[in-house]
Order: sequence, then C-alpha cells, then structure tokens
Amino acid sequence: MSFKDELACRSEAFNGYLEEALSGPFDCPDILADAVRYSALAGGKRIRPVLTLEVTKIFGGNQKEVLPLALALEMIHTYSLIHDDLPEMDDDDLRRGKPTNHVVFGQAQAVLAGDALLNLAVETVLSGIPKEEENYLEAARILFHASGINGMIGGQSMDIEGGRDLNYINSHKTGALLTAAVLCGAVATLGAEAMEIEPLKRYAEAVGEAFQLVDDVLDVEGSTEELGKETGSDEKNDKITSVSLYGLDETKNRIKELQKQAHLALDTINYDTKFLADLADYICERNS
Amino acid sequence: MSFKDELACRSEAFNGYLEEALSGPFDCPDILADAVRYSALAGGKRIRPVLTLEVTKIFGGNQKEVLPLALALEMIHTYSLIHDDLPEMDDDDLRRGKPTNHVVFGQAQAVLAGDALLNLAVETVLSGIPKEEENYLEAARILFHASGINGMIGGQSMDIEGGRDLNYINSHKTGALLTAAVLCGAVATLGAEAMEIEPLKRYAEAVGEAFQLVDDVLDVEGSTEELGKETGSDEKNDKITSVSLYGLDETKNRIKELQKQAHLALDTINYDTKFLADLADYICERNS
Repeated sequence: MSFKDELACRSEAFNGYLEEALSGPFDCPDILADAVRYSALAGGKRIRPVLTLEVTKIFGGNQKEVLPLALALEMIHTYSLIHDDLPEMDDDDLRRGKPTNHVVFGQAQAVLAGDALLNLAVETVLSGIPKEEENYLEAARILFHASGINGMIGGQSMDIEGGRDLNYINSHKTGALLTAAVLCGAVATLGAEAMEIEPLKRYAEAVGEAFQLVDDVLDVEGSTEELGKETGSDEKNDKITSVSLYGLDETKNRIKELQKQAHLALDTINYDTKFLADLADYICERNS
Repeated sequence: MSFKDELACRSEAFNGYLEEALSGPFDCPDILADAVRYSALAGGKRIRPVLTLEVTKIFGGNQKEVLPLALALEMIHTYSLIHDDLPEMDDDDLRRGKPTNHVVFGQAQAVLAGDALLNLAVETVLSGIPKEEENYLEAARILFHASGINGMIGGQSMDIEGGRDLNYINSHKTGALLTAAVLCGAVATLGAEAMEIEPLKRYAEAVGEAFQLVDDVLDVEGSTEELGKETGSDEKNDKITSVSLYGLDETKNRIKELQKQAHLALDTINYDTKFLADLADYICERNS
C-alpha cells in the first residue's frame, strides 16, 4: 500500500471513532449538534490524531487507551478552525471544500459550536482516564498546555493582531498542537522522562514548522479546488508569512532543511519510525 | 458579621487566588493576557466558587485541594459571559459596571480570551489533581459535563435561537453550572455515592432556577447603576423569560417557593448548612 493510501486508511478508521464520539445523543438544540458534527466530520487529513496513535503504536502502547487524547486533539483542532474562520477573525467562507460553519449556522452558533468542541475534548479526556493514569494525565496536561493561551490560542492572538514575530506565530499557532500530537502518544506510553521524548520533540517541531510553511506556499501557488479553501487569503489579509518575508525560493529551501532535520531526529530513535518518516515527506511534499 | 459581609470577605479571598492563577506570566501577546484578566478580575459575586469551597468545608474536605475546581468554575463562568456579550450573541456593551470585553479589546481577541479561559480552566484542573484523585476527577467530570454541550453551552444555544423551552434554557444556561458548583465540592470530598448528594442537588437546582428568575425580575425592575449592566435587554432582544411568560407577580411567587424548597432540601442534611441557607436567601432577595 502506498503511504498515501495507508494514511487515508488510518484517517478513515479514525473518522469512525470520531463519528461515534460525536453521535450523542446530545441534550442540546439540533442546530448546535449539527454545527458541531458538520465541521468535525467534514473530512480533513486527521494528521494530528494519526500521529498520536502511530507514536503510541511505535512504542508498544495501548492505542485504545490513548484514543480519547487523539479524539480530543482533533476536536480542539476543529474548534480552532471554526473560530479562526469567523468574520471577526480570518473571515473565511470556505473550508475543506465546504462553506464554513458560520456561513451555514450563523455566527453565534459557530462560536458556541467551537466552545462545545473544546469542552467535549475535555469531557472525552476525562471520561477515558485509564487505571494506570499517571502518564495519561501527563499527556493530557501537555495537550491542553499546547492548545491554550501559551500555545495555539496565543499564536492565533498574535496572528490576528498582525504581530510581526513570525517565529512565535508559527511555533504557537500550528507547531504547538502538532508537537502535542506527537508527544501525547509517547508520554502516555513511555512517560515524560523517556529518552525518546527529546528527539520526538525535535521531529515534531520540524514537521510542525514545515507544515505551516507548506501552507504558506500553497496559499500562493495552490488552487482553491485542490485546497478546498480560498487561496491568496494571506495576501488579502496582509498576513506576515515566510513567503512574504523571505520569498518563495527561500521558503522552499527551508522546508527541505526541516524535512532533513525531521529524518535526522528519527534516526536517533531505536524503534520502527518508518511511518513517521513517510509522514514528514508527505507533509513537506504535499500539494493540498 | 452579616451574611453579606461574610460573602464579600470570601469573594475577596477567592479573588486573591484567582489573581494568582491568572498572574502568568503567559507566553502570549499582551492584549490577550490583558483581555483574559480584564474580565476575570472585574469583580462579580463569585457565588459559584464560594459555593464549591463552602460545600467542601461543610463535609470536612480539603479546601486547598478543591480550589482548582473552584477556580475552573469561575474561569468557565467568565468565558461564557465574554462570549455571551459578543455582538453576534447578546450584543451587550456593559458588564459588571464596565465596558464588555469586545468593546475594549475587539471582537476577535474577545473570542480568543473566552477560549483561553475555558482552556485555562482545564489546565488548572489537570495541574491540581491530588494524590487521592478518584473523587476529584469525578468532580471534574461533573463540572465539564455541566459546562458543555449538554449543559451551559446547550442552554445558550437554545436561548440564542429564540427557543421557547424556558425550562430547558434556565436549567441548562444558568442551572447546570450552579448545580455543578455545589456538587463539585461534595463529590470531591464525599464521593458520588454519598447520601448528601441528592438533597444538595435539589438545593442547587432550586437556587439555580431562583437565581435566573431574580435576574429576569431585575432586568425589568432594576437599574443599570445597581446592576452594572444594561437593563431591559430581555425585552429588547425579544427573549422568553419567566416574566414575559407568567408576569412579575407569578415569577416572584415562584422565587419564594424555590427559596422554601432550597431550605427544605438543606434540612435533610446533618451538617452545618447555615451558610448555604443564608446564600439561598441572599440570592432570592438580592436587588443587584
């Protein structure tokens, strides 16, 4: 099976779990449940949860036990997209090839659907605490630290403000949650002190930065059809990106450098990291 | 000391803890940290955390261990106010006598400040897990169930939709979190199976409903100066309330009935519930 097929297969499997986790029934207005499911089940690459589950597998952990953390990651990622797309934020009408949440359900329900997904992430994590809970709870702490004011939300705040610290924005807005995705599975399985944590972190930070840079390149070079969202939005919103600061060529060189760093980090880990290596290549070389 | 002084004293003490919990330093733009602190430290009665700590005290629990849950409750309550006040929601300009968050920091940062507070609530709960964690985690589950899609967020969604199920709106939008405030301290201290849980729940539901009904009455009869927020907003927003459905007199009768129910529930508990009884009176008889 090609790596792309393998990834699609895992995304598909994860979608089943996510659908189940969001099947309710919820004690809430239909519009809110619909809004939550609409964005969460709209597809997407599911890279974060797939990473969490793969890292768990690599180290011989229990994927079923770590699944709530993977589900929470994707719920958090989805809520952040819903809020980012709001008129007062990036004001995007298209996401994953479909009208954005607030276009379909209105702005107020979109705010609430995002809130609900973040809260559901917490409920999912708390409901899934296993008997040997110490490493799991440490992983949960890493996750919510990465998604919060010192991580993803901080990055989005600076981005919205038009802050000029590109390094802060990228490492926080995109990097923090991707790093958490990698670390969650490892910490839940091996504990926070394991020697594999440090190289995994280096791997995740390289892949996370590359992920953002490829996004920036695609926003200039990609097409709306391929991406399922509007392109050219960075320029429209006068956003600072690697492309606007350093140009396309230098950004592409940096992506290659990060790809190499990701592989070097994996080389120091004495486990089967082939899927992670392929995923780094996929992220760095994707065109959508 | 009068009950009002006692309450003020406890609010004050809690404010100190909350200030410390929000002192950071945060790795985020100043505007976001300022927005978070602005609303969280703007005063307010702190009824929820005071309830949690009092219930803990009544049953001989460790207030320091339960404090993270109390802090999380107030963070969640504050984030819900920030989001509720947004232009796409209730569109309120005044809260606790000060301009609302989005008026000061802009709509985008207000959305993010709310997100950040919900996420901080989770971080606070996870960072404070005590050694004997079973009851604490059960209390945390109760809290996030009450604050989520099946509780507070569901209630707000129906309220925004102009839904006509007043009972659902009141029990979810206001009641759920207030009930969680009471149950948290009891479950963290006594466990979920204790015989005191059921009457406490009845007490909390009566007080929660009364709290909302008094709010509805004050929105008609109160003054903006006393309340620190605009009055008449329910009528302006064509909101369904007990007053609009049943009139002022019947609503006031219902408040008296609920006050009685709250006392009756407390009478069945063989612990010192004087503060809880006084708080019920205070909530039912307050004019701000």
